[in-house]
Parts: sequence; structure tokens; C-alpha cells
Amino acid sequence: MWGGRFGESPDEIMEEINASIGFDKRFAAQDIRGSKAHAHMLAEKGIIAKADADQIVAGLDAISVEIEAGTFEFSRALEDIHMNIEARLKETVGEAAGRLHTARSRNDQVATDFKLYIRDTLDHLDGQLHALQEALVAKAKAHAATVMPGFTHLQTAQPVTFGHHCLAYVEMAGRDRGRFADARKRLNESPLGAAALAGTSFPIDREKTAAALGFDGPTRNSLDSVSDRDFVLETLSAAAITAVHLSRLAEELVIWVTPGFDFVRLPDSLTTGSSIMPQKKNPDAAELVRAKTGRVIGGLTSLLVVMKGLPLAYSKDMQEDKETAFDALDSLSLCIAAMTAMVTRLKVNEEAMRASAAKGFSTATDLADWLVRTLDMPFRNAHHVTGTLVAKAEAKGCDLDGLSLAEMQETEPRITEEVYSVLGIDNSVKSRTSFGGTAPDNVKAMAAFWEKALAGENKNGSAKP
Amino acid sequence: MWGGRFGESPDEIMEEINASIGFDKRFAAQDIRGSKAHAHMLAEKGIIAKADADQIVAGLDAISVEIEAGTFEFSRALEDIHMNIEARLKETVGEAAGRLHTARSRNDQVATDFKLYIRDTLDHLDGQLHALQEALVAKAKAHAATVMPGFTHLQTAQPVTFGHHCLAYVEMAGRDRGRFADARKRLNESPLGAAALAGTSFPIDREKTAAALGFDGPTRNSLDSVSDRDFVLETLSAAAITAVHLSRLAEELVIWVTPGFDFVRLPDSLTTGSSIMPQKKNPDAAELVRAKTGRVIGGLTSLLVVMKGLPLAYSKDMQEDKETAFDALDSLSLCIAAMTAMVTRLKVNEEAMRASAAKGFSTATDLADWLVRTLDMPFRNAHHVTGTLVAKAEAKGCDLDGLSLAEMQETEPRITEEVYSVLGIDNSVKSRTSFGGTAPDNVKAMAAFWEKALAGENKNGSAKP
Amino acid sequence: MWGGRFGESPDEIMEEINASIGFDKRFAAQDIRGSKAHAHMLAEKGIIAKADADQIVAGLDAISVEIEAGTFEFSRALEDIHMNIEARLKETVGEAAGRLHTARSRNDQVATDFKLYIRDTLDHLDGQLHALQEALVAKAKAHAATVMPGFTHLQTAQPVTFGHHCLAYVEMAGRDRGRFADARKRLNESPLGAAALAGTSFPIDREKTAAALGFDGPTRNSLDSVSDRDFVLETLSAAAITAVHLSRLAEELVIWVTPGFDFVRLPDSLTTGSSIMPQKKNPDAAELVRAKTGRVIGGLTSLLVVMKGLPLAYSKDMQEDKETAFDALDSLSLCIAAMTAMVTRLKVNEEAMRASAAKGFSTATDLADWLVRTLDMPFRNAHHVTGTLVAKAEAKGCDLDGLSLAEMQETEPRITEEVYSVLGIDNSVKSRTSFGGTAPDNVKAMAAFWEKALAGENKNGSAKP
Amino acid sequence: MWGGRFGESPDEIMEEINASIGFDKRFAAQDIRGSKAHAHMLAEKGIIAKADADQIVAGLDAISVEIEAGTFEFSRALEDIHMNIEARLKETVGEAAGRLHTARSRNDQVATDFKLYIRDTLDHLDGQLHALQEALVAKAKAHAATVMPGFTHLQTAQPVTFGHHCLAYVEMAGRDRGRFADARKRLNESPLGAAALAGTSFPIDREKTAAALGFDGPTRNSLDSVSDRDFVLETLSAAAITAVHLSRLAEELVIWVTPGFDFVRLPDSLTTGSSIMPQKKNPDAAELVRAKTGRVIGGLTSLLVVMKGLPLAYSKDMQEDKETAFDALDSLSLCIAAMTAMVTRLKVNEEAMRASAAKGFSTATDLADWLVRTLDMPFRNAHHVTGTLVAKAEAKGCDLDGLSLAEMQETEPRITEEVYSVLGIDNSVKSRTSFGGTAPDNVKAMAAFWEKALAGENKNGSAKP
Repeated sequence: MWGGRFGESPDEIMEEINASIGFDKRFAAQDIRGSKAHAHMLAEKGIIAKADADQIVAGLDAISVEIEAGTFEFSRALEDIHMNIEARLKETVGEAAGRLHTARSRNDQVATDFKLYIRDTLDHLDGQLHALQEALVAKAKAHAATVMPGFTHLQTAQPVTFGHHCLAYVEMAGRDRGRFADARKRLNESPLGAAALAGTSFPIDREKTAAALGFDGPTRNSLDSVSDRDFVLETLSAAAITAVHLSRLAEELVIWVTPGFDFVRLPDSLTTGSSIMPQKKNPDAAELVRAKTGRVIGGLTSLLVVMKGLPLAYSKDMQEDKETAFDALDSLSLCIAAMTAMVTRLKVNEEAMRASAAKGFSTATDLADWLVRTLDMPFRNAHHVTGTLVAKAEAKGCDLDGLSLAEMQETEPRITEEVYSVLGIDNSVKSRTSFGGTAPDNVKAMAAFWEKALAGENKNGSAKP
Repeated sequence: MWGGRFGESPDEIMEEINASIGFDKRFAAQDIRGSKAHAHMLAEKGIIAKADADQIVAGLDAISVEIEAGTFEFSRALEDIHMNIEARLKETVGEAAGRLHTARSRNDQVATDFKLYIRDTLDHLDGQLHALQEALVAKAKAHAATVMPGFTHLQTAQPVTFGHHCLAYVEMAGRDRGRFADARKRLNESPLGAAALAGTSFPIDREKTAAALGFDGPTRNSLDSVSDRDFVLETLSAAAITAVHLSRLAEELVIWVTPGFDFVRLPDSLTTGSSIMPQKKNPDAAELVRAKTGRVIGGLTSLLVVMKGLPLAYSKDMQEDKETAFDALDSLSLCIAAMTAMVTRLKVNEEAMRASAAKGFSTATDLADWLVRTLDMPFRNAHHVTGTLVAKAEAKGCDLDGLSLAEMQETEPRITEEVYSVLGIDNSVKSRTSFGGTAPDNVKAMAAFWEKALAGENKNGSAKP
Repeated sequence: MWGGRFGESPDEIMEEINASIGFDKRFAAQDIRGSKAHAHMLAEKGIIAKADADQIVAGLDAISVEIEAGTFEFSRALEDIHMNIEARLKETVGEAAGRLHTARSRNDQVATDFKLYIRDTLDHLDGQLHALQEALVAKAKAHAATVMPGFTHLQTAQPVTFGHHCLAYVEMAGRDRGRFADARKRLNESPLGAAALAGTSFPIDREKTAAALGFDGPTRNSLDSVSDRDFVLETLSAAAITAVHLSRLAEELVIWVTPGFDFVRLPDSLTTGSSIMPQKKNPDAAELVRAKTGRVIGGLTSLLVVMKGLPLAYSKDMQEDKETAFDALDSLSLCIAAMTAMVTRLKVNEEAMRASAAKGFSTATDLADWLVRTLDMPFRNAHHVTGTLVAKAEAKGCDLDGLSLAEMQETEPRITEEVYSVLGIDNSVKSRTSFGGTAPDNVKAMAAFWEKALAGENKNGSAKP
Repeated sequence: MWGGRFGESPDEIMEEINASIGFDKRFAAQDIRGSKAHAHMLAEKGIIAKADADQIVAGLDAISVEIEAGTFEFSRALEDIHMNIEARLKETVGEAAGRLHTARSRNDQVATDFKLYIRDTLDHLDGQLHALQEALVAKAKAHAATVMPGFTHLQTAQPVTFGHHCLAYVEMAGRDRGRFADARKRLNESPLGAAALAGTSFPIDREKTAAALGFDGPTRNSLDSVSDRDFVLETLSAAAITAVHLSRLAEELVIWVTPGFDFVRLPDSLTTGSSIMPQKKNPDAAELVRAKTGRVIGGLTSLLVVMKGLPLAYSKDMQEDKETAFDALDSLSLCIAAMTAMVTRLKVNEEAMRASAAKGFSTATDLADWLVRTLDMPFRNAHHVTGTLVAKAEAKGCDLDGLSLAEMQETEPRITEEVYSVLGIDNSVKSRTSFGGTAPDNVKAMAAFWEKALAGENKNGSAKP
């Protein structure tokens, strides 16, 4: 293959560690697309004959059909997808095939293929996140006024609405999409024509191949072009953050379906049973979404370790980028799909949410705020008075509205009957009308904002409601 | 402190694990800035009296002076920077201090502080990377035509110029700055006013505080606002990629100063000696830059692990974000500074580079390309012919131009005397005129492009040369 | 300091990135201990005069006193703890100080210091884990028969006892201690005398210094001795696994103190409140234990990255081992202490545990087993029958024992009245008498086994009950 | 499958995310082995009929044959290897198959299978490391006196021998094997019979199944038994450290085959060429060994993230342990094999090593030591005098022995002609006779020690030479 200089064939162990065809065959479509663009350009610039280019392109198209049909025979001895395709091209079109690799190297070729692949993947993930956002917004709309306990430290904090909770994840997914979009934009320069590392003496037109492949233009430095895997690292970083977001919702689902919470129910078709315990109905999909975060983080770590301290330009270490990226990005894609299914099909147990929201002194802050507003008490003092009333209620075994006015007045004589109006959870959520707050009208408006944004222009919510 | 409800003081171990004042005092400036904006807004909206706000602001200014003077006494019992400042404010301005915390919580307060801190850090790092780019461009300009061996797999591949090599790192730093800029833009929404998690019933104006703090606007979801640490994760991701870039150049420096290469020399002031071996002059700074990559990657891993699977909204786990971020970002900042010093002050050994570039059959590709161009040989055949000539030269113990024409013609009879013209390294680099290639004129032009870009508009090279 | 060959002083940035005294002063005790052993040996072997050794040792003892008293002045210009101490020794004992560094280098010196430090830390952590085990065993003894729901997938699976649950963590801590013990044993070879990297021509006695420092003997290869940081990596690996264990119990505590579970209560002194919500009582310590896992994992990642691909022998990269290890191991130590306090002081809410255990068809497996035992039904059939009964009960809104015999017999006519005896949770746990099972008598016996093991010989439970 | 309770079949996405048969079919042999042991024990304890057990065992043996022959049809709808085998057993032996799952659960079953698998893998890796040690010892023996430059900071430090360098890696591999052995010992307790999480009411004999499967005994806590993945984490930790060791030697090989060093040559069969540069011969195998470290570290990170914060007992998250472990351990196995091949087949360029060792003032320490020994100069002074002479030689452009006696005496008048005897590299290495030092006789003795240890008793060198 790289023949002339070598006196020995590769060892079995060499072939095993070195060959990448087992995984880089995923690049077949991208590789053929890149080769066709290259061949056209070579002919247009007179570097190879038009007739040769035509043969090459026709041959590549035929190979593409073979690969899609599953009849193409991949060979490990031919190392990688590039050599597998070129070797087959030789078989089918003969000598012209040998002219395709003029003015390029596998180094710029694989960088091109991988960029095209990552770009396709980013587009796919973006579409999936869009669908997840839609599912969340639909739930938010339906539950704009469904009261649930808002937690901090997993302790009841203040009542919020389930719709508001859903929209928090819409925001996260919006940032995720923003990161993917930025990564896509930054990677969109064509390395093709950087050749091995130094550029080439053939009069190639890199603008032309860049345009043909949908790149914004060619890269500016040939050494960097073949040494750069930033586009994978950045994509994996963004993927890891997305996975962390999904893991948070997954954790919540796992907790919410416990008997102690019972806030939501998942359909049988998204849960599993036990081989020994006949009653079990387990939220496996949520657990797996949570767990696969490890895999995405592990993949990011892996590639950062690979790239650390590599001298320029291309080193073979960089071949380890592919399986790592495939595994992490496939995992993420699966997680988004599973989460979207769960969000879409979960049933909300409004009674359980409401009952839980009413407990745990969840309106204590409302009481403190009432003291501030009504009695002009400094917030710190109001906080202290309320804390004392909470302790009193806890001792009595009731909630705040279970204290009599007299009991309250023991602590703060100026408290009036009016205070009870702020201790109800509906009043509490309704009062949170500050921008971004949980008041049902806010939630409805924000859901509408996102609905419009997702239908149209501002896919990551970059415009204002 | 959060008093009324609690019957016991914290345990010693509780205080030790819980208190953050040891590290979050770094936020003092940001915390005061945020509190002043909040106090002004509260007064403007009539939530507190103008007189109270004035007292608060004056008190905060005085505390700021104390902190800068080093006379402020931080207390661990007061947990964190927020409580330390508020407690001191109470001492100095009395009851008005108790009104400052109206309509906010430490949850939105710390999110605001940390965003402001990260934003400042991003700006600082951007300035440092700009300086590094300038240092690299200066070297590129000076060495646009200094020939060195270009490596792949750390084996001699093709001659390139040292200037071209420097510009590869300018590209990387450009992308790094692009990532930091994107992170800055994405984080620039104000969480202040999200309060504990649900928003507030006080009629606050979040647009106003956002504007006062230089944010583009307020965040759109209160739960997300206090649960979100994407801005740290994204910054650490970008930092990790930057650190990887620096580690690559650091590795090259370590290799280049070995006796076997001797491509560059570092000044005494950037190297160290040995306690036992009197002759040693070690590239410690380069090694430490390389090593600190581990620290930045470790920091990123750490925070991803912390955030994985956390239910909304704020959990105390999130307090672990700070030391991790400080350590990683301080390390990166130190690395950029050290690398800029090394780049600026290294001396290039042009003779050693040139001699090395001339060895190792570095112009074999030029020979193959000549066969393609002159004899219309398909590249694959030309590659094979050249490989055979390399094997022949190796056996003879000479370089390619050490083969006689007769010896060459044994392999390929059509080779002519003209072939020797492409075997020189100067001709080789000059011939690489494709866009982004290493030809000295290309390198000069690209250095000029960057010089202009860095001086003015397109700081991350987003425009075309 | 390494003077003769250098023409320039270090740059400010060089000093900043290079100096380690800011953190390696932690090694002061170990460094002095090592130097004393070295000086004694040098004198015994006649390499330096006895009088010089005596002066050195006395001087080092005096320095030790200064350091403990806090009067020692550390200097960054002197780089590290080794040079700081030696420089001070020069001031106090004069020329003899210059003889101490005979036949050693900072490379073997720092390896020795760090091994001694890690060994001390391992002993400390072992003692802490022992205390945690004791706390868990005490709880297990007290709650050997306290029934709680055993979970899989956080869904009610089968009743277990709280004592049994506690003992699961005793097992984990036992393995943790086993790993620390193995790490301690493996590291316990002395690198002192490996000198810079090649050994020395002075007739030193490495067995002697090894013995004086409590090592089992000297290392066998000088290059390895100064290049090896396995002992840190292995310790951090073991620490990471320990941290994961603690994070699991921490997560359980966070869930158990939610209103939905309410299984345990933490004392006020181990929880915190909120700056805005007066009712809050948050399990911050548990959350921080959970979170600091990230820090330990991050530290392990960091050092693995640092060591990856480092050529032999010592490289300056290895200086990054210290802060990383300190941070991770300090974090772990804090976590163990906090967890021990929580385990010791938590109150079990037996009623809530019991009520929860009785729900969720937790004895369905008992029913299936009864069908197998009594009706000789294959387990798979019994599983299916039970599943059908669970569905029936769920539809009816009752638990399994809420089904009438007639209702059961509709599904499986051979079921008799006897079946109700296995549907009670007390009978269920009592029946689990297989070795390692949750039957209260088992749990008592196992608690007794551990009590004895912890009091005496088998600290990691390596003997059998 | 877990039938009775479920009203719906799994969603397509559920099946896709949930099914593990794609990868856990690797456990087929272990699963069958475990089931046979379980069936035998059930019969011996009278829990199932002997005839049923016989049918089950015969059926499992037949399935084993089918799997090895590749005729077994794996079904994704059946989720995992356990259900695939049990379903096939049902087809072949009928009702008896339904009795196999008595008194066990997939939770203890998968823990047993995975422990058996990891144990097999540990044994395999140990054998591979043994072979690597043998290869290194053979090289050490052959090159006990081959002088090469010893490096610190990749700068020439002192002459060492190549054999000594090889033995450093033998030590590392010895520790690696020690860690694997410890992990193997610690994992060797049988979880079988822990059932779902609580143990069982059937009168099983866990000692018996433990013994049948080669375990040292049963685990002591049923909750821990099904929740524990320490054995994977510990194995991956040890694997990561091993991978780091290999990466260090791989980095050295990459550097040693550069033209600047040329210390060793790799055979054609372990290198590759370039698609564009006909002269290239690249050390791909070494680079891939270096890179795959990232994958092993990434795998460790991944599983630590998965396990962090998981409540007891089994959660589905734990299913993510398998692919991660397979990928990391397969990668490591491949790396050891490739490294063993490289070590065995590399050719040492003794002349290049020797020439390089003689340069760079590598015997400066010998000179300093001579001053100490001969002139009784304190080492610090001797170090300074030598440093001055190095600077003088460097200015003159010669090595230390290129300075005339007069030139030396200008710096230190007491220097005599004798000094030149310590400036030769052969004398230098010969003088390093301290235990573990590089003197050729030491190296020979140590190689012999290892040869004997590897042939017999002390496989990880735990005895003394």
C-alpha cells in the first residue's frame, strides 16, 4: 500500500492495532463526497484529465451504491476507509484511480471526512434537541399552573409549577444547541488541500473544494489543518454538558417515580420488570440516561488525554479520536431520544405534587415577605420571626397555617389575619411574577415564547420573550 | 445566621466542610458590585427607602476599601463572602443592612457573583492569548523563510518553515479565543432576581440590575438561573482545549532543546539547574506548562462529576464549583504567561533546523510530484517509484540527491537531470504555494494578516486573509 | 542555588511557575526525617565525618523546632522545601551543611519525602475508615431488626433491615481499607540513594536508610526510583473508589431526609438553613460529601494525565503530583469525618421506614417463593402468577394481602390461606436466612463479627464470620 | 419475560437503550458456568429435583456448544445473555428450565458472571505482563553494559546502560502485576445467592457454589453483593496505571526513532508508511500504545462517574459497566501485546547511544563527586566548581575532558591529572555500584534476579535480589 520502501509485511499485531477500517467505515459517505469534490477540482485546474476525473467520479458513485447495498467487501489489510475505497476504485476504473490521490494526503483527507461527519452529527443532535424542547414546552403549556414543590437541596423550598420546571430544561437545551451551533460554525473550514502537512506544489483551488463540501472556506495553515482535532474536543465538551443536563432530569424522574414522591408515572413500555420480583416496574430508561453521562464524560476525558502533548503535525495517536467520538455521540443521541420519549409520555400525578407542595412550610418565604411588605420589617428580622414560627409549628406538628393568630402574635404581635392569605400555595405561585418567576401567567407566556421560537427563528431562545 | 428555626450551632466538622469563605472571598468585588446594583434597584422601585439604599451603598463602598486594604476580618462562622459582607454592613450601617437581602437569595446572589467573576476571567485570558498570538506572529515574521523539518509521527516528513509552525499555534489560539468569546456571550444573562428558585413577589426590575452589571438582560427561568453552572463547565472545557494546545507546543520545546535536536535555546532565566548535576539546564517551564494540562482537565472532570445527576434547583454540591474553577483557570493563566515568555525569548538555531530538514529524504514527496507532473505518472505509481529510490538511497547511505541519474534511471528510465532541482529543501518549501501552504511568501502574507487582525478588528482571525 | 553554570537569575514568571515551596512545605517533617537518616548513614559509612553528621542532625532538629513554632521563614527564591531547609542549615551550622547532599539528589529526596507523606496519609485514612466502620456497626447492632424497604432502581424491592443496609457500607469500607493497605505495602520501598537517576559511586548503605525510615528495603532500580509516582496514583485510585462509596451513602441520606421518605433525621448541627427561606434545614454535609467525589476523581484524572507519556527519568511535570494529591486526600479525609459524624448522630424514623416497607408489593417475591415451595411450581411460572396478582391488587388499589383468597384463587386455584403468612414484612425479613441475607439474626451475627474484627485482628474483614 | 404485571410491550427506544445482549453475550461462558453450579447446588439441597438439575445442566452444555459453534441466535427482545440462555433452555428442556432461577436473581447472576469475567481477564493480563517482563529482561541481559545517556527533563543527565533502562520497566510491570493480583484476591468472593438484594428463604448453600466457581467463599452482605462494582473500578484503576507505564516507554520509542536520536530501530513489520510521502516509516504502534492510555483513563473516569451517588442496591446505571470495561481492558491487552512485540524486535543502535551519552557534560556529577572524595570539598562547593567548569567548556565549545588541566586549575588549583579518569562514560557507569545503580555488574545481577523470579516463585519481584 505504501509499498516501495518497505521490505516486510505488517505483523499480525501491527495490523490489529493499526487498522481502523473496523470503525472508520462509518466515514464512507463523507470520504466519497470529499474525493468527488477533489477529483472535480483537479480536473478543472488541469492537474488531471477531465476523462480521468469522470471515471473516478463514476467509480466512486458505483462504490457508494455497493456500500449502501452492503456488498462492498472491507479489508483489514487495506487499513482504513480511504485505502479500501481507493483500492476498489483501482479494480473498477483502473489507472485513473491512481491519479485521485494527487495533491492530497490521508492526513487532510481524514480531517475532511471527520469534519463532515461531526458536522452531520451536530445537525442531527440539534434536531433531536429541538424535538426534546418541543416535548418539554408541550408539557409546560399543559402544566403551567400545576403546583409542585420546588426543591433546593432536595428539601421543599417554595411552591413552583411543573410547567416552570419543564421550561428550565428548555433553557438548558437552548444553551446546548447554542454550543453545538458555535462548534459547527467554528469547524466549518476545509482542511482539504493541506496535503500531508505543508500544502502542495500543485495549483489546486481550495476555495472550490471547500465550497463543494459546504465549508465556509479553506483553513489558513496546513500544519494546523492536519493536527487539529479541536472540532471533536469542542463537540464532546458540548455533548458532556448536554449529557449532564439530561442526567439531572433523569435523576428527578427516578426520584419522582418512587413511592415516596409518586409525582409522575412512566408508561409500562418505558419501564422494565424484574426476573425475581414480580411487582417491579423500574425506570430503567431514566437510569440509563443518567448513567450514560459517564460514558460521554469518559469519552471527552479520553480524547483530551490523547491530544495532550502531541507534537505537530499528524501523529497516529489521533486515530483514537474516532471510536471515542462515535461512542460518546451515539450514547448522547440515544439519551436524547429516550428522554424525549419519557417526557412526552409521562403522566403527571397532580394531586401528589400538590399535596407535597403544601407541606414542609413551603410558604415560609411568603410569610417573611409579608412581614417585610406589611410591617416594613427588615428582611433579616422577618426571616428570623418566620423561622421562629416554623419551629413553633413543627413542635406543634402542623404546617404554618395550622398556627392560630394568637400563637403567631406571641412571636410578633403586629401580625394580622391577613397573613393567612399568603400561606396558600396557589397564592404563593401566583405572586411570583418577577421576570422569569413561576407565576402561571409567566409560565404560559414563556411557553408561548418558546413555542414560537422553536417553530421559527430563534432556535436557542436568543431573542427575548 | 439563618437562625430562628435552629436549636443547635453547627458542629466543628460541619463548619469545616461547609464554610466557603476560605475561597469565595475572591468574589468580594463582584459581590459588592451586585449588592449595590440590587440596592439601587430596590430603592428605585420603592421596595426599600432611598435613604436605606444610600446607607447600604455607602457601607458597601467602605467595606470594599477595607477588603482592598486587607483590614477586613473574614469569619468562618459566617460561612461565606455574602454573609461576611452583610454582617459587616450590619455593624457599620445598622438596620438598613437587614433590608438589602429583600427579594433575593444567596442562590441568585452567588450565581451572579460567579458569572461576573468568570466573565472577568474570560476577559483576562483573552488578553493573555492575544499577547501570545502577538509573540508567535512576531516569531513567524522573523522566521517566515527559516527552513525546519516538518514532522508527522515525529519523523521527518517535508520541509516547512519555522514561521509556518508558529502560525499553526496562532490559529489554535484564535479558536481558543473564539470559544472564550462564545462562552462569554452565552453566560451574559443576569440571574439576579431569580431569588431562591421561584422568583419573587416584590416588584423588582431585573432588566435594570442586569444592565447595571453589564449583562445583556435577565435570565428567563428562575429555576434554571440558580441551578445552572454551564458557564463554568463551558469555560473549563474551553480552558482544557487551550491547555492541550499549550501542552503540544511545550512538548515540542522540550524535544527541541534536547541535544539530539537543538532547534531552539531557552534563556537561563527560563530554565533551571540540578541540585546534583552541575551541567544541567532544564526546560522546567515548558514541562510545567505541559503538566498543568492535567490540572485543567482534572478540574473539568471534577465539575462534570459534581453536576451529574443533581436535581433542580440549587444543591450544596454546587459549592464545589469554585475551588475547582479557580485552580484550573489560575493554572491556565500561568501557563499562557510562561509560554508567552518562552516564545518571546527563545533563540532559533537556524543551522540545526536546516541541517535536520535536509536529512531523512524529506523531499521524497517533491520527487513523486515531479514524476506526476513531468511524466504524467499516476500519483500512486510515482509514490511507488519514489519509495524504491528511497530504499536504494538508504541502502547506499546517502540522501536522495546522492543517487546518480543512472541509479535513478535503473528504477525509472524517464527520469532526467531536471529532477535534482526539486530535491533541495529551499525549492521544496518555495513550491508549497497552495493556500495555507508553507511557502515563505505565504507565511509572510499570513503573518501580516494576523498582525493586522490582532491590531484591530478580527481578533480570532474570523475574516479572511 | 544551582549556580555555577547559570548567567542569569530566573524570570519572575519562571519563579512563579517553578517554585513549589508554597505547597511542598507540607513535607518539612518528612524531609528532615529523611535527611537525618541520610546524614547518619553517610557518617557510618565514612563518607562524611561523624562531627559533620552530628552538626547536621542537630541543625536539622533545630530547624524542625523553628518550623513547628512557625518562625521559619520560607523563601520562594529557594524554590522548594529541600533547598529552604538546606539553606537554613547552612546559616546555622555552616560548611557541614554543604556535605549533606553528598550521594543524593533532590530527585530521590522528593520521592522519599512524598512516599513518607503518603504512607502517613494512608495510615490516617485507615484510622478514619476504622472509625466510620465502628459507627456503622453500632447502628447496625441497634437496628438489626428495624425493617425498611430495600430498593433496586430506587423502587421498593423487598424488605430489609436498616442494620443490614449499614453493614453493606462496612463491607465497602473494608475493601477500601484493603486497597489502602495494599498500596501502603507496595510503596514501602525506599528510593533514597537512587540519587539523580543512576545511583552513586559513594559507598552508601541503602538498607540502613531504608530501615531508619521504616521502609521494608531499598528500591531495586534507580531510574524507576526517581520516575515512579505509582504510589500516588494507586492511592488516588483507592481514594476515588472510597469517595464513590461515601457518595452513595450521601445520596441516600439526601433522599432519606426528604419529606417523601423521612427515614432519618440529621441533627441541626449537621445541617444548615437558608438566607431567604426560614423553614429550610438542608443536608449540606451529605451533599458536600457527595460532591467532593468529583474532586477526588478529578485529582486522579489530573495525575494520570500528568504522568502519561513522560520519558524516564524525572521530569518537572511530576511536580504537579503534590497539590493534586493534597487536595484529593484532604477532601477525602474531610468526607470520611463528616460521614462518620452523620452516621453517628442520625436518628432513625422506624415508623416511616416500616410503613414504606409494607407498601409497594414488597413481599411479592415471598409469594412467588411460596408458590414454588408449596405447589412445586417452577419459579418462572410462580413469577408470572405473582405478577398477575400484583396487577390485580394494583387495579383494586390495595396491597397483596388486600386480595381475598377467592381473588387469588381465580388466578391460581391451589393457593391456600397459608399464603398470607408470607406476605408480612417481618416474616419476609426473618425468612432471608441465607448467608449474607437480611434476616435479623444474620445481621446481629454479622455485626458481632465486625465488632470483633474491628476491635482486633482482621481490620478489613478478611477472616470469615 | 417479566410478564404478569405489564400491560404493554417495550417501546423501540426502550429496547434500544435497555438491551445489553449486544455486549453481554461475552459472558456466555461465565453465565453457563454459574448456572450449572447453581443448578447442582439446588439439587443437592433438595430445592429442585435431581432430574430437573440434570436436564438443566445437559441443556446448558448443549447451549454452550451452540454458542461456540456460532449457531445460537441472540435476540434483542430477550434483553440480555441471562434471558437469552434461559429462553433457549426452555425451548430445549421444557419446564425444568423454569426452575433454574429459583433462589437467585439477575442481580446476583450478573455480579457473578462479571466477577468471573474480570478474574479471567486479570489472569490473561498477568500472563501478558509476564511475557513483557521476559522480553525486557532479555534485552536487559543483552545490553547490561550498553551505555546510553540517562535523561532527566529529557536533557542528558548521567550515563546509564540500556539494560538498566529496560529493568526500570520490569519494575513497573512488577507493580502492575501486584495490583492485578491484589484486585483478583479482593474480588474473589461469590455474590451468587445474594438473590435480588436481600438473600433468600430457600436453604441454599453459598459455600458450595462459591467453591464450584473457584471463589474463596461467599460475600457477607447481600445488598453489597449486588451493588458492588469495586472489582471493575479497581481493575480499571490498575489498568490505567499500567497503560501510563506503557505510554512512557511508547513515548521514548517515538523519540528514540527520530533522526535526532536514532537510538533504536523498529522492524518494517511494526511500522507503517505514508500515502503521500514515500520515504516515511512511522512508529504507529508506539503512538497507538501511547494514545490508548487515553481510552483506558477515559474508561475509568466513565465508570467512576456512573457509580457516583448511586443508592443501594442494584440500579440500572450499573449496566454501563460492561462496554466500558471491555473497551478499556481490550485496549490494554492490545497495547501490552504490541509493546512486547516492539521490545522483542527493536534493534539497538549502540554507537548512537554511546555517542550521545558522551556529550552534554554527562559526567559532570562524577567530577563533582571526585572533588568531594579527593579534595574533601563539601558537595555544594564541588557542585559550584563543576558548574563553573561546565560553563567554561561550553564557552570553549568542548566537553569537560576537552579542558586542559591548566584551565581546570584556574578554577580549582587542587585539581590533578587524575580527574580525567572519572570523565569517561564507561568509568562513570561502572562507578554507580550502589544498590539499584546502573553499574553493568549490578544490571547483570538484577536481570538474573528477575529471570529467576519470572521463571518461578516471585512473579512481581516481591523477594529481594
